[in-house]
Amino acid sequence: MDEGGLRCADPVGFAGCYPRGGKVSDIHFDIASLHASYGAGLSVAEMIETVFLRIAEANDPGIFIHLAAKGELLAEAEALGAFDPENKPLWGVPFAAKDNIDVAGMPTTAGCAEYAYMPRRDATVVALLKAAGALVVGKTNLDQFATGLVGVRSPYPIPRNAIDAALVPGGSSSGSAVATARGIVSFALGTDTAGSGRIPAGLNNIVGLKPTVGVLSTAGVVPACRTLDCVSIFALTVDDAATVFDVVAQEDPDDVYSRAMPVGSQGQRPPVLTVGVPTGSDLKFFGDETMRAGFDAALDKLEQLGCRRVEIPFGDFYATADLLYEGAWVAERYAAIQHFMDTHEDAMHPVTRTIIGGARKLSAADAFKGLYALQALKTKIAPIIASLDLFCVPTAPTHYTVDAVLADPVVTNSRLGTYTNFVNLLDMCGIAVPTGMRGDGFPMSVTLLAPAGKDRLVVSLARDVHEASRLPLGATGWAAPTGRDRAASERGDIELVVVGAHLSGMALNGQLREIGAQFHRTARTAACYKLYALAGQSAPKPGMLRCAGGAGVPIEVEVWGLSAAAFGRFVAAVPPPLGIGTILLEDGSSPKGFLVEQAGLEGAIEISSYGGWRPYIASMNIAAG
Amino acid sequence: MDEGGLRCADPVGFAGCYPRGGKVSDIHFDIASLHASYGAGLSVAEMIETVFLRIAEANDPGIFIHLAAKGELLAEAEALGAFDPENKPLWGVPFAAKDNIDVAGMPTTAGCAEYAYMPRRDATVVALLKAAGALVVGKTNLDQFATGLVGVRSPYPIPRNAIDAALVPGGSSSGSAVATARGIVSFALGTDTAGSGRIPAGLNNIVGLKPTVGVLSTAGVVPACRTLDCVSIFALTVDDAATVFDVVAQEDPDDVYSRAMPVGSQGQRPPVLTVGVPTGSDLKFFGDETMRAGFDAALDKLEQLGCRRVEIPFGDFYATADLLYEGAWVAERYAAIQHFMDTHEDAMHPVTRTIIGGARKLSAADAFKGLYALQALKTKIAPIIASLDLFCVPTAPTHYTVDAVLADPVVTNSRLGTYTNFVNLLDMCGIAVPTGMRGDGFPMSVTLLAPAGKDRLVVSLARDVHEASRLPLGATGWAAPTGRDRAASERGDIELVVVGAHLSGMALNGQLREIGAQFHRTARTAACYKLYALAGQSAPKPGMLRCAGGAGVPIEVEVWGLSAAAFGRFVAAVPPPLGIGTILLEDGSSPKGFLVEQAGLEGAIEISSYGGWRPYIASMNIAAG
Repeated sequence: MDEGGLRCADPVGFAGCYPRGGKVSDIHFDIASLHASYGAGLSVAEMIETVFLRIAEANDPGIFIHLAAKGELLAEAEALGAFDPENKPLWGVPFAAKDNIDVAGMPTTAGCAEYAYMPRRDATVVALLKAAGALVVGKTNLDQFATGLVGVRSPYPIPRNAIDAALVPGGSSSGSAVATARGIVSFALGTDTAGSGRIPAGLNNIVGLKPTVGVLSTAGVVPACRTLDCVSIFALTVDDAATVFDVVAQEDPDDVYSRAMPVGSQGQRPPVLTVGVPTGSDLKFFGDETMRAGFDAALDKLEQLGCRRVEIPFGDFYATADLLYEGAWVAERYAAIQHFMDTHEDAMHPVTRTIIGGARKLSAADAFKGLYALQALKTKIAPIIASLDLFCVPTAPTHYTVDAVLADPVVTNSRLGTYTNFVNLLDMCGIAVPTGMRGDGFPMSVTLLAPAGKDRLVVSLARDVHEASRLPLGATGWAAPTGRDRAASERGDIELVVVGAHLSGMALNGQLREIGAQFHRTARTAACYKLYALAGQSAPKPGMLRCAGGAGVPIEVEVWGLSAAAFGRFVAAVPPPLGIGTILLEDGSSPKGFLVEQAGLEGAIEISSYGGWRPYIASMNIAAG
Repeated sequence: MDEGGLRCADPVGFAGCYPRGGKVSDIHFDIASLHASYGAGLSVAEMIETVFLRIAEANDPGIFIHLAAKGELLAEAEALGAFDPENKPLWGVPFAAKDNIDVAGMPTTAGCAEYAYMPRRDATVVALLKAAGALVVGKTNLDQFATGLVGVRSPYPIPRNAIDAALVPGGSSSGSAVATARGIVSFALGTDTAGSGRIPAGLNNIVGLKPTVGVLSTAGVVPACRTLDCVSIFALTVDDAATVFDVVAQEDPDDVYSRAMPVGSQGQRPPVLTVGVPTGSDLKFFGDETMRAGFDAALDKLEQLGCRRVEIPFGDFYATADLLYEGAWVAERYAAIQHFMDTHEDAMHPVTRTIIGGARKLSAADAFKGLYALQALKTKIAPIIASLDLFCVPTAPTHYTVDAVLADPVVTNSRLGTYTNFVNLLDMCGIAVPTGMRGDGFPMSVTLLAPAGKDRLVVSLARDVHEASRLPLGATGWAAPTGRDRAASERGDIELVVVGAHLSGMALNGQLREIGAQFHRTARTAACYKLYALAGQSAPKPGMLRCAGGAGVPIEVEVWGLSAAAFGRFVAAVPPPLGIGTILLEDGSSPKGFLVEQAGLEGAIEISSYGGWRPYIASMNIAAG
């Protein structure tokens, strides 16, 4: 790679790109590492220099359609004030937005220059990210009007796959995935209707979180299929995707398809997850036996992680997938741009024009017949979905070169959607997660899928899968941040003292892991507490009560760190007679933690002499054994 | 009315109609009274004679399109065995089915002879009714393909409004409503997409229950709009509608739009119901000031029944209603009969043909735009719906004569749907209930509406509204059955002993009323119980525990009667430490009733000396006062 004073190609007015400046280029941009660097003294100006340096290094004019002016970016960064990750969880974090998502002051093209307009407002998700301290670096290339899974259906240069330039980058969120994989940005927004937030993640060795439809607002996003569209998140690590998700998962009155995360979505992760996989004869790799072997290896890894594999006939899932382009939903794509298309058809990419133009032959009766067909398939599939915790599928069945896709643009695209097209139609959420590098150097990825609202469940398992892969991040060569780096990044987190069933290895500990809580330390309380085994609980639970100084004993506890949002949700779900108060620890600190109301102790047995819930439970087991 | 040997008009092969036989014609066909008559010795053959006699008396060839042969009906009745209302809650109950609902062995015409087919299977709802002992008398006339609210859009004779023959009967379920109002049948099935289950009820002084979409199966029903269609229930009393509803409200794997009644739909009826009504300036009566006065009087009555009235701007509800025929949903009607219509257009009623033919101009993109418009309105209206328990609207804004409708078939029809067309689009359930007779002798009716799943809530309030009206039933002149008649009809019911918060006037008594429980008697237990005030409950609750003979005291209780289904649902919802066991009463009987588990008494206070929960609570109030 050229070390000199590069300028990136400039199709639509790039800001200047900066010469490589030396040490700053080593800054890891995963959020944990970047925040650790800020904490260690990195300036946001150095971060911005690095962004532009990496753009120059990438030397890929296909990634961005529009770049922020560096001066404006610096001014925005300065307006953030001092490093404050507690109040701004994305403080100083650079990101890119797919160019069908509005950023005020940057044109939105949707991959079609003639369609471009200048939005006056940020899309809701962009506004939320900015409010959390994130900085928009630019707008990324895409398959025109987000129609495609290949990343080559754009009048702009084709972004180069970050792992192997001969391969397609995947689409439609091509530029966002490549920008993330190259470490140009910490994360990027995509959209996902048919798989546009998963396929490019899989093809570029990064994480692609496709949330439940409606959980991320689509206000300010150019529609593809309004009933199915999602904003998606590309990130280098699962934790980063989850951090971004927590910032943007907000019900939005400006989006009529917005919905709140379902109540109960904080539920406990079961100790054993039942994972459905397509039965062997229903798996499709189109001759790519390396991909089949990689998928088999990933399933073995899932079993090592404690999952139970169940093979599922996949015919009805494929039939659902077929509806997306063969059924009536292509009419949504036409409805979204009908006036533009009817007046500017020549301005469109020829493949896109042909696909969306097919909708003109469809009647309203056809549309409703499509809805009926989907409903019939949903009804058939519902008991299967209900019998499982989640699904694991290959993210893509195979890799295609750019040449292969250009030679046969429709069939290759259709095959790439084998494991993605049915997902939004069935109201599922999913996350594409890297599982390894193949012998040929191509990336290997699986997608975990679950019913609507189980976003945090797929994230939780994806975290384990990604960690187990020990892969470098994207195309950066960076190692995943270690626990120490992560802890360093979480100084802003709220600490929670847990006393009983939430302790490591105990029955409710999964509730903490599922919302991204990090274990910080074991500790002992000051000698002013009594511990009780509560009566009348569905499962054994202790209650810790503060008493007058000297009357109590020190109790063994654990301290966990949670984001403010996760903590808020956690506290809202604590059932009486338990509550959250301030706990005085032996070391003099006083984090929040579990207490029991005095009124809840009727029938309870005092177990203070055991010094903690774990020794008490151990004694019970011995007594029972 | 002619007392001689009439034969009814016979457009499509009626079975013979019978001469009036004297006393049997006095049998009241509301289910409670009919079952009381069976209990008193009425034979099902006499019931069937009465059905045919009343058909003859009605002398209205527009009501039925097909009638059962009397011999077959008698054979079916004999197959029921002895009177057994406990296991067959509709034992010997005659009903009619709208002729878009399949009954095996009777042609289904949907109001279009050329469309007719002979179904081999009963529609699911018909099969459930037959299994519960009900007998299908025949298939009733309708606005062709269930498109219309007037009842005059049929190639068969127009059914005559049962209250005033100059008025339209209302549609599309015209024949079903008239057959019920005339007491020819105990109840009838209709369908309701735009209001077809409510308007004819309102125009014929009967009850019309339109359940939540999907709660009654539409398998075996000719579709109108598949995403909105409901099977509906016409009955003479609210209790009868509820009895039929309990039989047919079953999830059905044969209907892809079937859904189970939501969990929690048995919830307590709040002591004060907040009822939304259209704000005065948004009420539309099209100049019918008598209807306005009748509606005002009905609202006053609701307030006397303990409801709190809240005026609601209704513009968004009307905008939703407009979508049904002006938006894309008419394409569902076309999709349902597309092949028939494209090949037999001349066979269709001219008005129906024109309305449904409008769908041919609509594209798939138009259909999706309609869905988006609905979603936007749903989002706007959702907070209003969430702020209320239910709504009360006029069932129809005015009455029209047959002549007026024939002169202007579209505008009059559209006006009749003012308060009905939005309901299924917004996923609400509703019940039309008579509130009085106007000075001009025309019927007055309101419709109570609530969100999906609140079917039992609207039924519960409708029962009070109908009882308060003291109206005779339909056009029969029969008085509503008295409590004694009802109790007599409920000998098959299961008795439940309640001890605490479910006693009359106590906090949870509404739970019993909501599921149709009837108060039977006060009683005392044998002297072998102790009563406790339980600890740790969210609201004060007693627990009654049986103890060794002689150790306890007699406790004041109440005995309520519930249908087996209602009892089953009630028991399933009893929270621990309470349960249902067998209670020994002072009179030697031993019905089921509330007991507490010994293990649930920790912290409880024994209050046996008060002799019951009511005196204990009274003493507490005195102590607190």
